[in-house]
Amino acid sequence: MRTQVVIIGGGPSGLLLGQLLHKQDIDAVVLERRTREYVLGRIRAGVLETGFVQLMEEAGVGTRMAAEGQQHDGAIFAYGDRQFRVDFKKHTNTPITIYGQTELTRDLYDAREAAGAETFFNVENVVIHDADRDAPYVKFSQKGTEYRLECDYVAGCDGFHGVSRQTIPLTIRREYEKLYPFGWLGVLSETPPVDDELIYANSDRGFALCSMRNENLSRYYVQCSLSDRPEDWSDTQFWEELKRRIPAETAEALITGPSIEKSIAPLRSFVTEPMRWGRLFLCGDAAHIVPPTGAKGLNTAASDVHYLYHALIHAYHDKDMEGIERYSEKALARIWKAERFSWWMTNLLHRFPEQSPFDLKMQNADLEALEESDTAQKLLAQNYVGLPY
Amino acid sequence: MRTQVVIIGGGPSGLLLGQLLHKQDIDAVVLERRTREYVLGRIRAGVLETGFVQLMEEAGVGTRMAAEGQQHDGAIFAYGDRQFRVDFKKHTNTPITIYGQTELTRDLYDAREAAGAETFFNVENVVIHDADRDAPYVKFSQKGTEYRLECDYVAGCDGFHGVSRQTIPLTIRREYEKLYPFGWLGVLSETPPVDDELIYANSDRGFALCSMRNENLSRYYVQCSLSDRPEDWSDTQFWEELKRRIPAETAEALITGPSIEKSIAPLRSFVTEPMRWGRLFLCGDAAHIVPPTGAKGLNTAASDVHYLYHALIHAYHDKDMEGIERYSEKALARIWKAERFSWWMTNLLHRFPEQSPFDLKMQNADLEALEESDTAQKLLAQNYVGLPY
Repeated sequence: MRTQVVIIGGGPSGLLLGQLLHKQDIDAVVLERRTREYVLGRIRAGVLETGFVQLMEEAGVGTRMAAEGQQHDGAIFAYGDRQFRVDFKKHTNTPITIYGQTELTRDLYDAREAAGAETFFNVENVVIHDADRDAPYVKFSQKGTEYRLECDYVAGCDGFHGVSRQTIPLTIRREYEKLYPFGWLGVLSETPPVDDELIYANSDRGFALCSMRNENLSRYYVQCSLSDRPEDWSDTQFWEELKRRIPAETAEALITGPSIEKSIAPLRSFVTEPMRWGRLFLCGDAAHIVPPTGAKGLNTAASDVHYLYHALIHAYHDKDMEGIERYSEKALARIWKAERFSWWMTNLLHRFPEQSPFDLKMQNADLEALEESDTAQKLLAQNYVGLPY
Repeated sequence: MRTQVVIIGGGPSGLLLGQLLHKQDIDAVVLERRTREYVLGRIRAGVLETGFVQLMEEAGVGTRMAAEGQQHDGAIFAYGDRQFRVDFKKHTNTPITIYGQTELTRDLYDAREAAGAETFFNVENVVIHDADRDAPYVKFSQKGTEYRLECDYVAGCDGFHGVSRQTIPLTIRREYEKLYPFGWLGVLSETPPVDDELIYANSDRGFALCSMRNENLSRYYVQCSLSDRPEDWSDTQFWEELKRRIPAETAEALITGPSIEKSIAPLRSFVTEPMRWGRLFLCGDAAHIVPPTGAKGLNTAASDVHYLYHALIHAYHDKDMEGIERYSEKALARIWKAERFSWWMTNLLHRFPEQSPFDLKMQNADLEALEESDTAQKLLAQNYVGLPY
């Protein structure tokens, strides 16, 4: 078998890249380790930068997102007994879009099927061969059958635990990591969101976030211990803890209900360099992880897809290899900015076990400076809605 | 003896307060533990906010500063092999003024003598009595003679090691502190400054700063170990180390000469709360210390003087006690902002022993964000030139 681009991983970044390439008549095959249903069942991010939305439109899959996605022009920050709003529209004239990862993944699969593009599910034993040579190929098996897929390029969209990053030799690869001493306990509930916009709260009991997927689907989080398990938290305990961490009037307005999903995610910052090895390109979680504070995870994946998509167009259509050669440099430049912003937001809003009274005063002073300074709010807004590609 | 305000400490904040009060016909006596010559021999800060300059003018001691001080409209930041300038004038329309603490202290002493205002030098055994009652008094001795000085108010301008802060009972006082794991080795030399503006450098060998007092008096610093002693560093070693930490073309242009002063200062952040106890007010280093990165030390002292001066005017002239009652709250609000900025600048520009490769990447990303973002530069400029009183 032969294709032009093998895309390893059928999550949103692999699917978005596949759809963009399809629109440009570049042939791609997607290999996914799980089933379509499993991928669609993952509850993940829902805050999208405008750059992401534009890529979806360019891929021809933006129609339902445009109809059902919610545009937010700001977000609320609460600390101590104070709260303030950062106005994205005023500072950047750019909104963010709320649209669940589950929904956009469904749109991408529907489009991929309608296009008749090939996707292998339940693949096993994926091995990338000769990525640093002129004629790479990918071997994999599916239901006991072995396959060999020849290609020009391999896009590694297979996440943090995938084979793509591991394929780059350790002599070349350099990894940077920070583990945070807490996790996020998240609950999804079929209740109306407590506010039209996101509420980020730094309370003396720890961080909390009020978020949503649509007008009857809410997503709430509280900072928790890394040793906690989801089953340690009853729904009642979760709602009570959330209410203690958010402003009193918000807590009073909160409509609670049974959780339809409850999970704990550790917080991690991670970047691998380089993001290209010969004809293999890393995209999204395969190359980098951000803590969820600031909602950059899915958006950094889209950033990589943007650079790779343009590199491949220029390589195939114009025989211009500059985008290919400079993919790692360009993608990483934007990734490190998003890593910085996510790390900064995480430090600003969480309680850390090692914080001294002075450190707590500095965190409070950072929040006060943000509340009082129009310039500081503009800087946050510019990063939150997404820096230019 | 009786006066209206006893000012403990004859450094710049005590003297400035005394001169401002004198202009308002409010009587003050200054008590200084050392000699005038000792005070004038201390080599300290030289970067003044416009708010400080305006207070000096209001005190009638701004003439020589206006003639001999240099106005700077920006500062240079260097890191790795890059450098950029932050334009204070463009972002804030406000300059900073370069004028040595030694010079302005001399101007203040000259004015104090010309006014015939009373200063006791070489005082010992200073004890503040009844600060929390209606009739405080200060006892001290000088050359074996005991004095008792009755007053309405006591201004504690006697620095970190002074008696004023210690007078506030520990049941009321709360102290916040951070010690940094390095010091600054500073050299004063009678050489022309290497640049018209300050150069802050983050190099992989540690922080360096090129500063000045006037056109033939330069002040340079390098980050050093806390275990270093000034005598461990020959002039040659200092200049060689400085050159390794600043941009190559700056190093080439550097004119070196014998050091006329060489000292090591540890870096510390410190704040005590509250800053008022009854009729005792803490000003400057008596209440707070900042690391020198960002040049806020003398400027935070001026900020306190501003609030105390206005509080005393309103109390004496208008019988309005609101400024007195709210002195601590108002002074601290601005102090914490300056503490935050100094801590942020220190974190941005120094190498810390515990920094992981990820931490170094975040520091570099912070510097890149500052280089690339007009908004980030504006935020720095607003803080550097001084937030409004």
